[in-house]
Amino acid sequence: MNNINNIRTLCADMVQKARSGHPGAPLGLAPFVYILYTEFISFDPDDENWVGRDIFLLSNGHACALQYVVNYLIGRLDIEDLMNFRQINGRTPGHPEKKHPGTESSTGPLGQGVANAVGYAISLKKLDHLQLGNRVYCIFGDGCYQEGISQESFSLVASLKLDNIVFIYDFNKTTIDGPTSLSMNEDVVQRFLSLGFEVEVVNGDDLDGIRKALNKKVSRPMVIILETVIGRGSIVEGSCKAHGSPLGEEGVRKLKEKFGIPEVDFYISSSLVEKFKNLNDRKRKIRAEWNTKGIRVPTIQEYMDMQRRMDSIYKSTYRAQDTQKATRKHFSEALKDLKETRYLIGGAADLQSSVLTKIGEDDFNSENYNGRYINFGIREHCMCGTINGIASHGYFLPYTGTFLNFISYGFPSVRLGCMDNLNLFYVLTHDSIGLGEDGPTHQPIEVLSTLRATPNLITMRPCDGTEVRASLYVALTREGSKAVMLSRQNVPEIPHSDIEKAKKGAYYLVEVEDPDLILLSTGSEVQLCYEVTKALPDLRISIVSFFSWELFEEQEEEYKKHILKDVPRVSIEALSTFGWTKYSDLQIGVDTFGVSGPCKDVYNYFGLNCKEISRKIAGFINNK
Amino acid sequence: MNNINNIRTLCADMVQKARSGHPGAPLGLAPFVYILYTEFISFDPDDENWVGRDIFLLSNGHACALQYVVNYLIGRLDIEDLMNFRQINGRTPGHPEKKHPGTESSTGPLGQGVANAVGYAISLKKLDHLQLGNRVYCIFGDGCYQEGISQESFSLVASLKLDNIVFIYDFNKTTIDGPTSLSMNEDVVQRFLSLGFEVEVVNGDDLDGIRKALNKKVSRPMVIILETVIGRGSIVEGSCKAHGSPLGEEGVRKLKEKFGIPEVDFYISSSLVEKFKNLNDRKRKIRAEWNTKGIRVPTIQEYMDMQRRMDSIYKSTYRAQDTQKATRKHFSEALKDLKETRYLIGGAADLQSSVLTKIGEDDFNSENYNGRYINFGIREHCMCGTINGIASHGYFLPYTGTFLNFISYGFPSVRLGCMDNLNLFYVLTHDSIGLGEDGPTHQPIEVLSTLRATPNLITMRPCDGTEVRASLYVALTREGSKAVMLSRQNVPEIPHSDIEKAKKGAYYLVEVEDPDLILLSTGSEVQLCYEVTKALPDLRISIVSFFSWELFEEQEEEYKKHILKDVPRVSIEALSTFGWTKYSDLQIGVDTFGVSGPCKDVYNYFGLNCKEISRKIAGFINNK
Repeated sequence: MNNINNIRTLCADMVQKARSGHPGAPLGLAPFVYILYTEFISFDPDDENWVGRDIFLLSNGHACALQYVVNYLIGRLDIEDLMNFRQINGRTPGHPEKKHPGTESSTGPLGQGVANAVGYAISLKKLDHLQLGNRVYCIFGDGCYQEGISQESFSLVASLKLDNIVFIYDFNKTTIDGPTSLSMNEDVVQRFLSLGFEVEVVNGDDLDGIRKALNKKVSRPMVIILETVIGRGSIVEGSCKAHGSPLGEEGVRKLKEKFGIPEVDFYISSSLVEKFKNLNDRKRKIRAEWNTKGIRVPTIQEYMDMQRRMDSIYKSTYRAQDTQKATRKHFSEALKDLKETRYLIGGAADLQSSVLTKIGEDDFNSENYNGRYINFGIREHCMCGTINGIASHGYFLPYTGTFLNFISYGFPSVRLGCMDNLNLFYVLTHDSIGLGEDGPTHQPIEVLSTLRATPNLITMRPCDGTEVRASLYVALTREGSKAVMLSRQNVPEIPHSDIEKAKKGAYYLVEVEDPDLILLSTGSEVQLCYEVTKALPDLRISIVSFFSWELFEEQEEEYKKHILKDVPRVSIEALSTFGWTKYSDLQIGVDTFGVSGPCKDVYNYFGLNCKEISRKIAGFINNK
Repeated sequence: MNNINNIRTLCADMVQKARSGHPGAPLGLAPFVYILYTEFISFDPDDENWVGRDIFLLSNGHACALQYVVNYLIGRLDIEDLMNFRQINGRTPGHPEKKHPGTESSTGPLGQGVANAVGYAISLKKLDHLQLGNRVYCIFGDGCYQEGISQESFSLVASLKLDNIVFIYDFNKTTIDGPTSLSMNEDVVQRFLSLGFEVEVVNGDDLDGIRKALNKKVSRPMVIILETVIGRGSIVEGSCKAHGSPLGEEGVRKLKEKFGIPEVDFYISSSLVEKFKNLNDRKRKIRAEWNTKGIRVPTIQEYMDMQRRMDSIYKSTYRAQDTQKATRKHFSEALKDLKETRYLIGGAADLQSSVLTKIGEDDFNSENYNGRYINFGIREHCMCGTINGIASHGYFLPYTGTFLNFISYGFPSVRLGCMDNLNLFYVLTHDSIGLGEDGPTHQPIEVLSTLRATPNLITMRPCDGTEVRASLYVALTREGSKAVMLSRQNVPEIPHSDIEKAKKGAYYLVEVEDPDLILLSTGSEVQLCYEVTKALPDLRISIVSFFSWELFEEQEEEYKKHILKDVPRVSIEALSTFGWTKYSDLQIGVDTFGVSGPCKDVYNYFGLNCKEISRKIAGFINNK
């Protein structure tokens, strides 16, 4: 246990030096992680993106001191990184961030890593033809277990019967406020059995037990319920006090004393150094042998580059037609053109018949891991966290669908995907009060503002079939996270809508000289601008399709000024007007919750028709 | 079964006439709901707010046609309401809305009703001294079961051992896209046993079985797993096609034929009318007897009126002191002054030691249902849905705490609480990048914009102890949903901060004549405005504390113009600038994700210090 205890004291040193952090979980988990890394996990110390690696995820991301120590021993971090824990501009932040060495996913918000793990396991399964034999190891804690996203993810992965995933439950029965008994009384073994998991219960200090569990051959998802003690070996062992505060100088001293570790800051024994040096050498040899197999797996970046070069296909395959069609249907048709695009993985949260995100007929399920469409069930949060995992792996481009209003259920994952600049996209249909009869519980109001306020997310709300193609082009070729808002109701094809222009985020559909007024609109409301223009013949009106705020913000100042001319500007969008003051002087939208009724009636109810809008605009112009 | 089948055909008629809606679940659930209402549920047909009633919740809100039919039979709705299903300005929207007769909670977004049910059960438990003996009956479907919020709620309610709640699982194993086997493979009986529930499995058409299950005496939460068939009796029986589309004229005709119901639109047999007439008479008698007991339960509105009259206490108990203190600590201290306020029910999602939302020492748990502090576990979504239930009941004022960033986990419930104008408040601490070391996964950026964009929600971000008192006053006295943003880090007491003025949403802390510039700021950044003013001695600068956007918007135009004078205005807030263009010409904030580091370093990293802000403002003014 000497090496393990040394890892423990390193973690305690890190937290102590930072004067903040979480020593409790690392102290409890050190034996498991040591055995996992020294005897099981496949990795290349020199290439953390090696496709032959196993995946290690720490869903209880606050335990990251432990992960950083291992990454240091593997050679991915320097000792200075450990000393610089939780400091600005460092590589060892307070919770794991994907951008730093040796971190597969950003975790910390509880339960996210569990969903990410499902995504990685799906991605690996789809690479099964390479016979990599990799596994996903995901550690999670009591907090993760309690979060709904984890329960959703366990249920999904059990249904998919993925045999390449091992969850490790850091079952220390302690959370921030005290013992889990404060709020939880479940028989967790029975819970995992009810899901259909392989379940192993192992004491957290029982190295042989850990080995035995990890050696077990399974044909379904496995969970190791690791009975650990928070703050193991410290003066606050077993107490919630061990969770989120440094042990104190005296506490660290006593920990070292107990473990027979010299009282030196960041002491590392030669035994520990040697152990990992040998391990790394062995791993390098394995990698060299593997290289001789000549396995080559294209990354999603390569695919996206290829799509960029194939730009033309979107123009050639679509001919705007003079028919009314919902933009969700346009998007569905455009997706179907991509049915040979095997690097796409789609899915929906049980709304396929509405969001229409299926490309082909091949479901990804336990009978067919070649499939590309995932039935996520009614589990939006798990869905978003899972595609974060798929995208993090970097070999497939995932997308999912739900109603715009219900992306809120998965938003904590959406946010992390944006933070990590993951390549993925969301297909969000029923994108306004136009959803109609299902009523205000289903009608989005504030959610588009939320998405626009989220850093790194490109939002698009196409007005017709042409702009839908533009949105799909951006979704397929532009790095990072994208969200496409689509109508439930039919819309006409808009004259002069344009794929190339749409890529600039905003452009003139109608441009008059010396306008009295510019109408800015998106999606299903663009058609209203034409009606309003006719109803106000005395005004010289230009019309701008404001397809994507974020793409527009990337344009040069001159272009932006050209669109946002210094004349009265009015925005029209059947959602919250929040934020539109950035571009418009008068905002027409919906700043209350919606109502249940047929689409047209709902638009009329909110004055979103030609007559009411024209009246408002006339009043506005007259008061200028 | 004739009466039951008649209820079924009424549901089918409603959906058919509306040309949209969900016939599947009502057809399957009709027998259960009929037995429940005619033999078990306590209600007063003339007073739906009677405290002696049992609570009926339909978490699978799309089944509402069934609920509306029952409410019609009870006399709460007219036949026109059934004919007017899903129409604008009607009382029978596409999903249940609290504001309409006979609806306890707005449901539809799946799983919400399950969490609401837990809240109602808690509220009833706290009224146990009245010996009402009421129960909560909550029906949920496969979709609800899959949602994480439900799993969180089941776990919480099991831990609380509430014996006054009966869940009914509409176990038809069918969701929108097909059989649940597409995405779910759980042994649901074992799942509920693992939670510690009393479990009864009953066939959905077995009336005696239903009676037996409902008669069972239990000492813990119960679930009746009701094996139903979606679209029972219709031509699409057992198929997902029965879920969300009308049966068609032919389908309705065949349904009536099968059940021997005359082919008349909205046919209602005299037997059914008679049954409910007698039932209503019986219920009226029970109510009359109950009235003689003289039970009187004050509503939360009465308590809030009382608080409004006690306005003065907030001023008298707080004396601003010249010390640095985090606003979360101020709030905690102010809460403690209310420790005798028994109608408050608090809680937190396992962050008590950080959010400090505990008033007294008395936890609400299975040993003490008099307690007022709920340990929700790490289950933000359940927490928010549960307090919606408590607030919907209307006898307690619930509030909860988490980090501002993690309210996103519960946002779908927050939204519904706002939609229903529920009386409750959120205590959201660690309200900016000032959270520091925990890093970008924990630092809020876009979430305050989300809350501000949400209709009916009053957001407040106090700058010091004085404004904290103002926020608590608003939280306690103002009807509807409120959210208070509080700092992790210490802030000074601000000169001239003022409780009365803060209630106007925005007010001058410093007001100069003919200002060159007005600084608008909130919370922990207000102090920076004073530093900036000193650093820019050549400019005449007024400072506005923009405590609450929503309260400000309620002021008269004259007052608003007085605050938003026609001079350059600069907003400073350590969160996303999204939306601030409404009030300011230059926005200083954080429009990327945060970084991990000590608070001060993080502020400096983002240029949120006197030097950088002064530089930006000087540049801005010079370019004017």
